[in-house]
Amino acid sequence: MKKFFFPRSVAIFGVSSAPSNLGRVIAENMYRIGFKGKLFLIGDRDDIVMGRRLYRNIEEVEEVPDQAVFLIPAKGLPQAIDACGRKGIQRIIIESGGFSEFEEERKTLEKEILTIAKKWNIKIIGPNCVGIINAENGLALPFYPVSPQYIKQGPVSLISQSGGLIHDIMLLSLCENVGIGKFVSIGNKLMLDENDFLEFMISDPDTRIIGLYLESIKDGKRLMNLALSTDKPIVLLKSNISPSSSRIAKFHTSALAGDDKVLDAALKQAGIHRVYTLEEMIECFKIFLLPPMRGTRLAIMSRSGGHAVLSADAAYRYRFELAEFSDEFLKTVKQKTRAGVIRMTNPLDLGDVFDINFYSEIAKSTLKEKDIDGLVIVHPCDFENELPQTIDFIRNIFEITNQFDKPVAFSLIADKKNWFTMKEAAPFPIFKDVDHAIKMLAKSYEHYRFHGRPKKKVVFHSVEKTAMHKPVAGYRIMPPDEVFRLLSSYGIPVAEYAIVNNLEQAINESKRIGYPVVLKIASSKVLHKTEEGGVILNIADDGVLKNAFHKMRPGPYLIQKMCAPGYELIIGGKRDSNFGPVVLFGLGGVFAEMFNDVVLRVAPIDKGIAEEMMNEIKGARILKGFRGQKELDRNALAHVLVNVSRLLIEHPEITNLDINPVIVFEKGKGCVCVDGKIECGGP
Amino acid sequence: MKKFFFPRSVAIFGVSSAPSNLGRVIAENMYRIGFKGKLFLIGDRDDIVMGRRLYRNIEEVEEVPDQAVFLIPAKGLPQAIDACGRKGIQRIIIESGGFSEFEEERKTLEKEILTIAKKWNIKIIGPNCVGIINAENGLALPFYPVSPQYIKQGPVSLISQSGGLIHDIMLLSLCENVGIGKFVSIGNKLMLDENDFLEFMISDPDTRIIGLYLESIKDGKRLMNLALSTDKPIVLLKSNISPSSSRIAKFHTSALAGDDKVLDAALKQAGIHRVYTLEEMIECFKIFLLPPMRGTRLAIMSRSGGHAVLSADAAYRYRFELAEFSDEFLKTVKQKTRAGVIRMTNPLDLGDVFDINFYSEIAKSTLKEKDIDGLVIVHPCDFENELPQTIDFIRNIFEITNQFDKPVAFSLIADKKNWFTMKEAAPFPIFKDVDHAIKMLAKSYEHYRFHGRPKKKVVFHSVEKTAMHKPVAGYRIMPPDEVFRLLSSYGIPVAEYAIVNNLEQAINESKRIGYPVVLKIASSKVLHKTEEGGVILNIADDGVLKNAFHKMRPGPYLIQKMCAPGYELIIGGKRDSNFGPVVLFGLGGVFAEMFNDVVLRVAPIDKGIAEEMMNEIKGARILKGFRGQKELDRNALAHVLVNVSRLLIEHPEITNLDINPVIVFEKGKGCVCVDGKIECGGP
Repeated sequence: MKKFFFPRSVAIFGVSSAPSNLGRVIAENMYRIGFKGKLFLIGDRDDIVMGRRLYRNIEEVEEVPDQAVFLIPAKGLPQAIDACGRKGIQRIIIESGGFSEFEEERKTLEKEILTIAKKWNIKIIGPNCVGIINAENGLALPFYPVSPQYIKQGPVSLISQSGGLIHDIMLLSLCENVGIGKFVSIGNKLMLDENDFLEFMISDPDTRIIGLYLESIKDGKRLMNLALSTDKPIVLLKSNISPSSSRIAKFHTSALAGDDKVLDAALKQAGIHRVYTLEEMIECFKIFLLPPMRGTRLAIMSRSGGHAVLSADAAYRYRFELAEFSDEFLKTVKQKTRAGVIRMTNPLDLGDVFDINFYSEIAKSTLKEKDIDGLVIVHPCDFENELPQTIDFIRNIFEITNQFDKPVAFSLIADKKNWFTMKEAAPFPIFKDVDHAIKMLAKSYEHYRFHGRPKKKVVFHSVEKTAMHKPVAGYRIMPPDEVFRLLSSYGIPVAEYAIVNNLEQAINESKRIGYPVVLKIASSKVLHKTEEGGVILNIADDGVLKNAFHKMRPGPYLIQKMCAPGYELIIGGKRDSNFGPVVLFGLGGVFAEMFNDVVLRVAPIDKGIAEEMMNEIKGARILKGFRGQKELDRNALAHVLVNVSRLLIEHPEITNLDINPVIVFEKGKGCVCVDGKIECGGP
Repeated sequence: MKKFFFPRSVAIFGVSSAPSNLGRVIAENMYRIGFKGKLFLIGDRDDIVMGRRLYRNIEEVEEVPDQAVFLIPAKGLPQAIDACGRKGIQRIIIESGGFSEFEEERKTLEKEILTIAKKWNIKIIGPNCVGIINAENGLALPFYPVSPQYIKQGPVSLISQSGGLIHDIMLLSLCENVGIGKFVSIGNKLMLDENDFLEFMISDPDTRIIGLYLESIKDGKRLMNLALSTDKPIVLLKSNISPSSSRIAKFHTSALAGDDKVLDAALKQAGIHRVYTLEEMIECFKIFLLPPMRGTRLAIMSRSGGHAVLSADAAYRYRFELAEFSDEFLKTVKQKTRAGVIRMTNPLDLGDVFDINFYSEIAKSTLKEKDIDGLVIVHPCDFENELPQTIDFIRNIFEITNQFDKPVAFSLIADKKNWFTMKEAAPFPIFKDVDHAIKMLAKSYEHYRFHGRPKKKVVFHSVEKTAMHKPVAGYRIMPPDEVFRLLSSYGIPVAEYAIVNNLEQAINESKRIGYPVVLKIASSKVLHKTEEGGVILNIADDGVLKNAFHKMRPGPYLIQKMCAPGYELIIGGKRDSNFGPVVLFGLGGVFAEMFNDVVLRVAPIDKGIAEEMMNEIKGARILKGFRGQKELDRNALAHVLVNVSRLLIEHPEITNLDINPVIVFEKGKGCVCVDGKIECGGP
């Protein structure tokens, strides 16, 4: 993989002297930026292009290039790749479009290419991509012009499914003085996908921060495992968020657990930072360039009252504490200033201190404080008179932040003339808005909390894609007795029940189970039994049962022990096409739906995660005993959650599972599943 | 008021030749920017400063200046202002700090100044402010340097409580090519406040958009009335959002209706746009410079697939429809292009169209479509080769957007070199991130929906501040019988009840009311009766009542008709220090608190607003009949809401009101208030 980024020689296919030729743009990029390797240009005739020899074909090239880049019509690729294989080239980047993204029948072409690649042991990036940019060696493969000014070494690496966005991310990161050392565009991911590159970036010593732009996810579980294997921040912009399909909406659990919510849950579990805009992505890069925020105790320095108020609001909004300064700090600061000029509060108001050089001293004293985890500086400034001092100040802060290994979020709005001068005063991020700066510090703290400590080892098993999409045994809804048997076999408590076909059986079983009982239609075709009159509760004796029986549609029927009153919850699961089995927990009854108060986790989950889920719902306080009520049996619920997780993993044919309601009693008295639906397979 | 912005002559007090003198900075600003009026510099000695005569005092000045600006120590102000009054000056701007914001005892000084001002009929801006900037006549009163390059005429006017923020807003707006023609800094608002200037800006024909930065609100109701009197967009950044005080937390309603939530409700009712950062404020200015978005039908044009996907996601996120293009449009576009090159979908993918000039044609055809309300353009661009065409494109779009009176949100990320060139290509906003551009279009539509149609006339009565803060009759909690009587007198249905002191009375009254009844402690000192064992429900007969009675603490007691089961809601109200009476509506029981599912409105409310409130809670579907349940009596609830609003307005002594629960029955069967607490006055 490393050789993709550091080839000694590259062959570019599809170069010509025609004005609209894009292959030539690639070569131009490489020459302008100064690629530290050899370049071979391949066209379809002998020619001189840009003063260099154009080869008719790869056979003519005197050596074996490390890498071949293609920008030729899709249909010509199999032959050309085969030729490369014969030549001994093992790395190929296909930039050409016109594959399965263009029309479905091109899949045959893709398969053909894969077969040839396998034959020659070739690795392929693309198709439909813009290749790689590597600031270190001047490799720049996009077929749009890349100015040498756009290349800036830095510890960020970016993996993008869109080539167009790489252009914008490159420009925007430069505007923010963020160096992205390596870009790779993965296009249609015919062979190599985001995870392959993520794995490489994680192992790459020059990469400290990783950005991802994805329109689809190839293997969600591998993504999670990779993210969990590193403490390098991974920032993901996932687009292509379509509303969940309508078919699955008929199952409660599925309707609640839209795919995007699963993605959200999975990313949180893996400690991946999700963003929604390019701007937010760059802001994340900026904050992760700083030392981590290791706690919630913030100090704020501001030159104006208005900014101090805004900063304090933001600190409150993002749950920081405004730490108190120590006596020693106050003494130090006072010694260096005219007494009484600085109001010794946090935010520290520097409105009356005109000597900017003194600010660095104060910042240093602040970071020295052991009760301060990070500092925010708001520095509105007179750019006509204070420019050199401000630049010095920024440079000092860059040194101080590294010296004390604590973050300083520097917030400043410059005029147009000095906008980029300020951004580039030091290899140090400058934030525009203080609210944003503090929001980003919260992100830093979130990262530290997740990744800064040794992690418990969880492995998310990659599931064979086909197994997820193509059900083992076709689509079916499991009959109720099978559902209850399966749940029981996983140690999940279900209400005592019997399946009956006529009144006589019903009476016998009711007696065995003991009145009061519930009578339900046991057909798997009736999805919403309650709404369709298929449930009669609290049947006290034979007489009532007889009456109830006559009102029901034809059987089979389910006789069930009527539960003692308790609190209704919902526990469910589904199989996500990206992340496999997912477990859901939420309030039951109308509230799950109305307040959408559910939480998801990708399986496997353990007791700790089950606890987390119970704490995360908005109605969490109900479980803990709300307003004088007794605490509910959280242990019993955790047990069900963990076992549902195990059940889903061990039964890949299950696509949806919905236990609704689970009735939970007070602590020590357990819980019981009263109704369950299981869907297997799926279209 | 206009003369504050257009004085023919200004006297600046506190000027000297000392290097640190700030009064001189004001004068320098005026000279550099070219103030179109006369300037008189007043110091404390005869001198020449900046080659101009320094007057010892105002008496020496040969004419009567329209305006005097003070930057002298606070204690010298009364005398100086009195001298101005004698001279005939009627407009004064006090920039000096050191008033009540500094120490409480300076209030006496403020009062003295007010007395003098009244004597001479003087209007005062400040103290503790930076005065006015007016691009039209070069008035620039801040005591920090204002470069002539910072001044840009434009239709935005800004009112700010902080002078420091004016500096940043000025710079940031210039970076975004937004002209803010008028700035005014209101400081401590000793006399003139935000509403006075808002009123002026609303009437000012050169102001189209108004920005407000406030740390406190002087008269919330006047603010609302002013905002409702205009269709000019008003954008408010309100800081100083402190957590609500703990005292009021013991009353449910108050705890739920934190002050900031009241502000939110009030701003929504008045159609004021609330923002949380300076950046967001400027983005609002940008979108309001465009024609309004009059509907939700959006078209998107993009040069890259990745950007198209991001745009479509954003359109979905902000609830826009991607409109379908008409056959005529498709015909027109096809005529002008090689067939099949453009995929005729929305987003329109221009990836294969290399002629930028053609984009303007397509944009024009798009806006011509009657089913399109607005257009988003994402234009990643090659700045080395496409700069002139892109500038032309932006200029064309500026013309087209005005021609068709529909908004075009142009999204583009430039390189550093061309960053500001792009922003300034036309008097037209350029957005950085397409997500943000589309979010702003949603803001435009929100504004149009609220202000684009004739509004119903509501007047929010300004309440005398003192009456709100100082209760008429001291703090007290109203006894239960008084609460029920008051509610009844406003036509609010309450459960039948009686106050009793002993068992005999209790039995008699229970018989009169009819069993089953409820027995409650009637002391106003027990706030949470249920938790404290002060409520016994569902008492069936004399015997049960007798038993219940013995368990209770000493009386008096409340006997109440036991209600039929229904759905529990909460209706409440409180008196907000900024906005006066506020009405609250939400789900009852534990849910109001757990899900914080409440909605607020500033009184008065009518039936229409009551309906809105019922539709706005997350649990709204319960009221409409959720999952086969019957619709509840929304009419009866609306009646209660409107009457609670009336009650609160007519009883200014009430500071908190909490009807919890209100039990509502199915449609046509009304509702009934079962318990109510009323707090009068307050510390």
